[in-house]
Amino acid sequence: MKLTILFGGASFEHEISIVSAITLKEKLSNFELNFIFCDQDHTFYLINASKMRATTFSRGEYKKMPKLTLSHGSFVQKSLFGSVDISGTVLNLIHGGDGEDGTIAAILDFFSIKYIGPRVDASVFSYDKRYTKWLCHARGVKCVESQELSSSEHSNIKIAYPIIVKPSRLGSSIGVSIVKDESKLDYALDSAFEFDNTVIVEPFLEGVKEYNLAGFSAGKKFYFSIIEEPQKEEFLDFEKKYMDFSRSGNVDSAEISKELESKLRASFEKVYKNLFEGALIRCDFFVVNGEVFLNEINPIPGSMANYLFDDFGGSLKLLANSLPHTKRAKVTYEYIHSISKAKGK
Amino acid sequence: MKLTILFGGASFEHEISIVSAITLKEKLSNFELNFIFCDQDHTFYLINASKMRATTFSRGEYKKMPKLTLSHGSFVQKSLFGSVDISGTVLNLIHGGDGEDGTIAAILDFFSIKYIGPRVDASVFSYDKRYTKWLCHARGVKCVESQELSSSEHSNIKIAYPIIVKPSRLGSSIGVSIVKDESKLDYALDSAFEFDNTVIVEPFLEGVKEYNLAGFSAGKKFYFSIIEEPQKEEFLDFEKKYMDFSRSGNVDSAEISKELESKLRASFEKVYKNLFEGALIRCDFFVVNGEVFLNEINPIPGSMANYLFDDFGGSLKLLANSLPHTKRAKVTYEYIHSISKAKGK
Repeated sequence: MKLTILFGGASFEHEISIVSAITLKEKLSNFELNFIFCDQDHTFYLINASKMRATTFSRGEYKKMPKLTLSHGSFVQKSLFGSVDISGTVLNLIHGGDGEDGTIAAILDFFSIKYIGPRVDASVFSYDKRYTKWLCHARGVKCVESQELSSSEHSNIKIAYPIIVKPSRLGSSIGVSIVKDESKLDYALDSAFEFDNTVIVEPFLEGVKEYNLAGFSAGKKFYFSIIEEPQKEEFLDFEKKYMDFSRSGNVDSAEISKELESKLRASFEKVYKNLFEGALIRCDFFVVNGEVFLNEINPIPGSMANYLFDDFGGSLKLLANSLPHTKRAKVTYEYIHSISKAKGK
Repeated sequence: MKLTILFGGASFEHEISIVSAITLKEKLSNFELNFIFCDQDHTFYLINASKMRATTFSRGEYKKMPKLTLSHGSFVQKSLFGSVDISGTVLNLIHGGDGEDGTIAAILDFFSIKYIGPRVDASVFSYDKRYTKWLCHARGVKCVESQELSSSEHSNIKIAYPIIVKPSRLGSSIGVSIVKDESKLDYALDSAFEFDNTVIVEPFLEGVKEYNLAGFSAGKKFYFSIIEEPQKEEFLDFEKKYMDFSRSGNVDSAEISKELESKLRASFEKVYKNLFEGALIRCDFFVVNGEVFLNEINPIPGSMANYLFDDFGGSLKLLANSLPHTKRAKVTYEYIHSISKAKGK
């Protein structure tokens, strides 16, 4: 199968996107892969598969590779001798800004390029943690209570310590701190506000169980990964997560009851249905006294959570063959015609 | 002031966008205007101001005009002799799909083109009536109770007749019906589902007062239009709305108390703040027993609701000088560098 991996982006998660792409190159060795890199200036480059290593990007060597432009139906490589379409479904693997905030989704939709990844509305609801909570409320999925702060009102935390402070719109634990008492609050807020002008404060739940579940729907059926109990530290900081993005080996299923598994899957479906079609997402849940809380939606999980799927390649193929169709309006000029007639013009 | 009016789009509201653009050409005669047309195939054309009449589009004459491409910072006209940037802030005047669903916003953001109009997240919350209700709930603004139907479950209306049936994602009353009793339900649902796969059902409130208020924020201050009590018919159908989009004369303020005016403005601010910055929007409210309900957000109102502003040109200038800045992440390669070092490479 042909697949074009689109990665990079002008985002704080630019580097982990590169790591994800390199990981998938290994994992999808039986696919016919193209690699398109979006640099921080929003220029697209076609990267030769043999050059898919971190230093190609960190040393700026990608700049010598062919630039691509957007055209109807595909990215295009133009040269003096004509132009070549980069065909194949795109896998949007740009983590964070650009990729997960709806920008790339809108561009691919506009140019009628088929892609795996969240659509614009799904992106908005997963990228901003405030809106994820609105989604949860509307769809009857529990989530942790929270307080929203905007840069002008640094104080008045209504939630009991310890608390967790997060920029409202970043993933990969960037700018996130656990604050045990008020003396550390200002520093945590400064770190978070460095990345966003809205910050979310939540109670830091100690001793909570954490479970990650990935999945997607294809042909109106849900396909789930195994459920993982992620490595337990207070939380993964950016460097650890970074390493996490290069995971490709398989992991063990969490030892949980069938009942809890069903609950996690049911919550996943409520979040996903009529919104995330076309995307393979990972939902990270907390479980407290048997109750399931959605912590976070990763609409483009690190290395696509490949390590959670028995048959990752097969799963991507299923999804690629079941992408949502955008109904594009057919433009007619009936009103203009009828008005012109009425005016006798 | 230079302003580029972007209009058209592959949308059911394509024609009314043309009408809006023609109306603004007259209204903004002291601006230095450019006109960019997006046709139904998503190709951009530079339209000579003297050709800004409906038949240029309905007869396909625009196809003879120069094509434009997207480039960093502006639309560009390329020719054998080089390329010319179409400079000036863009006014996104594409109503409905493309313009109001976040697509154009994402594209302009990606290419760092300054624009007046809703950003991606604001678009998602105003374009889909389901999400407008979530926004209302989260921000303490009252809205009419509703029921969501998806194409598979045509029946079981829990709301008492008469009801109003609307596609969840279209403006300008397209596909909207008032249903007085169950016998007319199927026809109304069929009409609505023709335009979207999700439909909203609301009680049809008879004898309700309707008020429209437009406004924007600039430099952290709110600027409001007069409040209009729109022409009272059961509701405006597409043809009447279409004529409505060409309004340019001024209208009278509704005769309402100072108290109600304050309530309407307060609801507007709650909806707008931290979401619609950069856009001039019109909120359509219902008032029932002195209580204010948000009916609809028009993030790109017909002809920009120019007829509601005493000094429309001055208002646009104020807004254009106060557009939100997108903080773009600076990409560093510190993790890749540190990992390469650790590996001794």
